[in-house]
Amino acid sequence: MEQHTQYALLAISGSLRKASFNTLLAKYLKHIAPKNLSINTMTLHNLPLYNADEDVSSSPESVKFLRDSISNCDGLILVSPEYNYGPPGVLKNAIDWASRPAFNSVLKSKPVLIITASAGPAGGTRANAQLRDTLAGTLSRVVVRKQVAIGTVNQKLEGNRVNDPDTTELLKDSLNDLVLEIKIARLFSREN
Amino acid sequence: MEQHTQYALLAISGSLRKASFNTLLAKYLKHIAPKNLSINTMTLHNLPLYNADEDVSSSPESVKFLRDSISNCDGLILVSPEYNYGPPGVLKNAIDWASRPAFNSVLKSKPVLIITASAGPAGGTRANAQLRDTLAGTLSRVVVRKQVAIGTVNQKLEGNRVNDPDTTELLKDSLNDLVLEIKIARLFSREN
Amino acid sequence: MEQHTQYALLAISGSLRKASFNTLLAKYLKHIAPKNLSINTMTLHNLPLYNADEDVSSSPESVKFLRDSISNCDGLILVSPEYNYGPPGVLKNAIDWASRPAFNSVLKSKPVLIITASAGPAGGTRANAQLRDTLAGTLSRVVVRKQVAIGTVNQKLEGNRVNDPDTTELLKDSLNDLVLEIKIARLFSREN
Amino acid sequence: MEQHTQYALLAISGSLRKASFNTLLAKYLKHIAPKNLSINTMTLHNLPLYNADEDVSSSPESVKFLRDSISNCDGLILVSPEYNYGPPGVLKNAIDWASRPAFNSVLKSKPVLIITASAGPAGGTRANAQLRDTLAGTLSRVVVRKQVAIGTVNQKLEGNRVNDPDTTELLKDSLNDLVLEIKIARLFSREN
Repeated sequence: MEQHTQYALLAISGSLRKASFNTLLAKYLKHIAPKNLSINTMTLHNLPLYNADEDVSSSPESVKFLRDSISNCDGLILVSPEYNYGPPGVLKNAIDWASRPAFNSVLKSKPVLIITASAGPAGGTRANAQLRDTLAGTLSRVVVRKQVAIGTVNQKLEGNRVNDPDTTELLKDSLNDLVLEIKIARLFSREN
Repeated sequence: MEQHTQYALLAISGSLRKASFNTLLAKYLKHIAPKNLSINTMTLHNLPLYNADEDVSSSPESVKFLRDSISNCDGLILVSPEYNYGPPGVLKNAIDWASRPAFNSVLKSKPVLIITASAGPAGGTRANAQLRDTLAGTLSRVVVRKQVAIGTVNQKLEGNRVNDPDTTELLKDSLNDLVLEIKIARLFSREN
Repeated sequence: MEQHTQYALLAISGSLRKASFNTLLAKYLKHIAPKNLSINTMTLHNLPLYNADEDVSSSPESVKFLRDSISNCDGLILVSPEYNYGPPGVLKNAIDWASRPAFNSVLKSKPVLIITASAGPAGGTRANAQLRDTLAGTLSRVVVRKQVAIGTVNQKLEGNRVNDPDTTELLKDSLNDLVLEIKIARLFSREN
Repeated sequence: MEQHTQYALLAISGSLRKASFNTLLAKYLKHIAPKNLSINTMTLHNLPLYNADEDVSSSPESVKFLRDSISNCDGLILVSPEYNYGPPGVLKNAIDWASRPAFNSVLKSKPVLIITASAGPAGGTRANAQLRDTLAGTLSRVVVRKQVAIGTVNQKLEGNRVNDPDTTELLKDSLNDLVLEIKIARLFSREN
């Protein structure tokens, strides 16, 4: 009998807003994930501002926690709003911390799924593109698929649930693509 | 007799590192500026992480100080390193705070000069481009000129001074271009 | 009695498709422009592929025509679809031709309005951002305003007309912003 | 006895200039490639401007040739200059042709290595980043590694050869990374 491989995912919300649509989406992923996926969610409230003087030897506890959480997950999910045509500084700041030591951090070869959402129609497509640029600098393996950019997200959430079937389908598909990328990354580390 | 118009500039460093090349550059600008320019410098050590729940009515003191400083200057200078092919989250976070209320903040119509510097040969050209994208979302008036991107900056600084004549010339030219953009912005507000 | 200054604008469509939404939009601008604006429209069917060996001294006739048309207009409008998260190569190719000699071409200091449109909800926001990046390299003066990105454009066109009042208003506003940028450019060049 | 798998690579130069540094680099790759790699080179002289009316059913012969060449290669290499802070329109135009039908073209899942080079110090880093953005829209698998951006390339070429050992090493490493990506793509498609 086949055993389903279990995968541990980490979903980080780029917003600190209490009623953030993106934090809701990050948490919602658990409800639609297949049984072999466990998804932890995280916000970035306690992270200090990145300072290169402290980036390796003397990192603050919250930074160590972030890095350990990423290190321990099989795949990372970033769920982000768009501020000023890009991801929040808050999220970029977390990636800056996680990305050190440069080109040899916990993000290296880590499969990452990017999700953006906004109240506007474009769904944060520009933040989505900038996040991909940023992650290219960390050598993580961004899932290859059409951008997951959810527009008019406020109309698609009802309480803590997504009430739009197309959006739910899109999120399920993208989780599936993340799992495929995790499988690829494992083949990669076996071959390399 | 002609009176020289005085301009107050604000130079913000995107790095928190104690011995940051970019902070040194920001401070160095004072030494090469013509007499009619006064340049204040600022780092972003005390700024909290941006939270949209606090962005307008209940902003922290350090955010008010940042906004007031930008509001009171005639032109803004961002001096930034490049982390992960973009500006530090620290700097993006400051812009996120400064940019609210959206499309009607202290950054609106503000002339801005972007300077990037790095130890590598490219001088932070990708961070430079991303900062322009970010500022487009704030309606500030980014100086129209060739990117000011200073590569191998570690070899061009000696103590607190730039020892490379071409770089000094480039910085002087770019200050001049910022003053021109300030003049344009004034014409603009007169006409609009 | 006040004389209304006349402005000559050039609207270039980035699409070669016969029934292109963007070409229709470019042509539609004439119908909503105030009387003091004349708008020529152009497609890029006859332009050769850019070759740096021919870029200055021996440019093909169609390139000379493009450059003259830009040189003779007071303001340029790019109306572009989005292919592969950016503007069409066709449009970038035209900008490459027009941009030479580098930093001293007909695009230098030229006021430019960027409009993107797509059948999808995002309206070509990523192409819009990339075009701004491209134009930064030409020293043209891109209008400072919220992106003009028209989503679900197929539903907003009826025959050759825009049937969506919000879109018409947006286009009128953006033409007005272009005229302001032209005025400022003139005042500035007169005073300096 | 181990058999070395043979890989067929296709290197496309983004420049049409006769003495193009990038075309020279593309051709030079053959000289440094291990024996199990065959590398064809291609320039884009004969490609028409992309027209969506002709993109699938009635594509011109040169477009069919481009698509077949990409389809038949195991891995694609783009070697590109930087014009106006991005790749040439000529190269984007070729990608636009190759990318159709959208999300299901010969570029889908194709391993791609991006190389940029310029006479300036930055080596085309911005074109490099924009090409990655573009390829994201085609679902190709861009090699995950530090940008291959070769600055002051004119000083590193002597006749048709690279005379800078670091650059040769960088190119060899990047070919190796492309082969790894090809292997993974194969293992993956075999196991799924």
